[in-house]
Amino acid sequence: MHTVIRSASQEVVLGHDQKFCIIGERINPTGRRIFQEQLRAGDLSAIERDVAAQVAGGAMVLDVNMGVPLTDEADLLGRAIRLVQSTCDLPICIDSSVVEALEVGLQAYEGRALVNSITAEDDRMAAILPLVKKYDAAVIALPNDHDEIPMEPEKRIELVEKIVRVATTEYGIALEDIVIDPLAMPIGADPQVGRSFFNTVSMIRERWGLNTTCGAGNNSFGMPGRDDLGASFLPMAIASGLTSAIMDARSPRMVRAVKAADVVMGNDEWGMAWISEHRAAQAAEKAAQEAASA
Amino acid sequence: MHTVIRSASQEVVLGHDQKFCIIGERINPTGRRIFQEQLRAGDLSAIERDVAAQVAGGAMVLDVNMGVPLTDEADLLGRAIRLVQSTCDLPICIDSSVVEALEVGLQAYEGRALVNSITAEDDRMAAILPLVKKYDAAVIALPNDHDEIPMEPEKRIELVEKIVRVATTEYGIALEDIVIDPLAMPIGADPQVGRSFFNTVSMIRERWGLNTTCGAGNNSFGMPGRDDLGASFLPMAIASGLTSAIMDARSPRMVRAVKAADVVMGNDEWGMAWISEHRAAQAAEKAAQEAASA
Repeated sequence: MHTVIRSASQEVVLGHDQKFCIIGERINPTGRRIFQEQLRAGDLSAIERDVAAQVAGGAMVLDVNMGVPLTDEADLLGRAIRLVQSTCDLPICIDSSVVEALEVGLQAYEGRALVNSITAEDDRMAAILPLVKKYDAAVIALPNDHDEIPMEPEKRIELVEKIVRVATTEYGIALEDIVIDPLAMPIGADPQVGRSFFNTVSMIRERWGLNTTCGAGNNSFGMPGRDDLGASFLPMAIASGLTSAIMDARSPRMVRAVKAADVVMGNDEWGMAWISEHRAAQAAEKAAQEAASA
Repeated sequence: MHTVIRSASQEVVLGHDQKFCIIGERINPTGRRIFQEQLRAGDLSAIERDVAAQVAGGAMVLDVNMGVPLTDEADLLGRAIRLVQSTCDLPICIDSSVVEALEVGLQAYEGRALVNSITAEDDRMAAILPLVKKYDAAVIALPNDHDEIPMEPEKRIELVEKIVRVATTEYGIALEDIVIDPLAMPIGADPQVGRSFFNTVSMIRERWGLNTTCGAGNNSFGMPGRDDLGASFLPMAIASGLTSAIMDARSPRMVRAVKAADVVMGNDEWGMAWISEHRAAQAAEKAAQEAASA
């Protein structure tokens, strides 16, 4: 099953037979005090630097979130999306918990966006899915409702079932345009969360063939050596059927782990991309050595 | 299901709820011309260095193979096993295609060995399984027969079925003492070998709960960046149910990937080992800095 998203000039396809989709996560002020102050003052200049770093690291889609308390998030998100589109060609994942901001973002976007996100809550679906339909976007859906984030894979699957039913039958969203985020939880909360996450991903794949995503860092929250943990977590999730992740593309360790997983899964056929990256790195190293000894 | 192997003083347990078992692979002359010449001349001194490097890297069991053409392999293997036991406390995986060598190795070994390996061929089982039983060892079994190494998971499962039936009913081997090596093949041969390997591992786990192993490097044979490929392949295999691998413990990238996978699987509970290794590394770094600035 293929989820197609597009910028004005580029198309990215999520699928179990496709290269893993790295959704660059850094264009987000959460937990970044200075960036928040700049945005509050209407200064969006830091975004260009963040975009450049994610693109250089290997991002294939950019998640853009402008959730700053006490600002007009809708206005900020619209401006940020126009800015990102003016500086790079990658498709955008429009990320907000504010419905109005999502709509302004969708209006500002040229292409086929990924909307982040809905839950299994009726009011969220009622507010956001008509926008997803109107602007012909794809949507990330989280299997949690008002009461809880269920820990058992079976309960999450029940909520995915509800999301799929409501989105396809009540709002006319195509099945392939629903991307499930099965909620990766911190290992520090419960040693079984990893297995539970992989089981959920694999059940979603078997039952619907849906594409999936997650916040790559959630699993290692609070642990030391997070890049190394992510560099094992992601290949494990990919083997279970995960097809994309919202992650910081500035981590060479995690990006390389994902590219290697593409080779192992047969989605980088014959390792063509892997081998050409290896050759490019060798050539760059040789050039640097020659420059140093010149 | 737990496979227990022992040296005179240490016990190692393979299991789906256990830390992944790193079987150090370097004590093997295959492809090492100088080492072969030394062994042919009766000089075993290189073994001590190889043992030390595998132990330092994190090996939990040592694979010992003395397959040098035109030598008395049985005599060499017996001597090597006595030497390894005199220099380190880890359990040994006795590795030979020569039945007489396996027997001399088992005679020389103090503890509960892992024997590497049998196939589904009747004559191999008839020659080796009585030794496994007599010396109370565990055994690695490869699902191939005279004709072929089958590519389809289903065919390999049929051969595992045969091995399990013959070993348990005809030779009285306990089910938990059979460790299956489902034959990891090079990606370069066929882009689907990774998926096929993971499916086989997962079917073996579901059907019998058996422990599994593989040569960690086989998958990346002929590709550049083999350590990075192995560092993704192993976590993917672990998520599918692999419980050990014969691998070069001198690769920090692969060893770290495996330790991270233990955390993610919940087999390094609460990340206790991970966190303490991180602290030890920090303390070592601090000590090195202080020494440098003193």
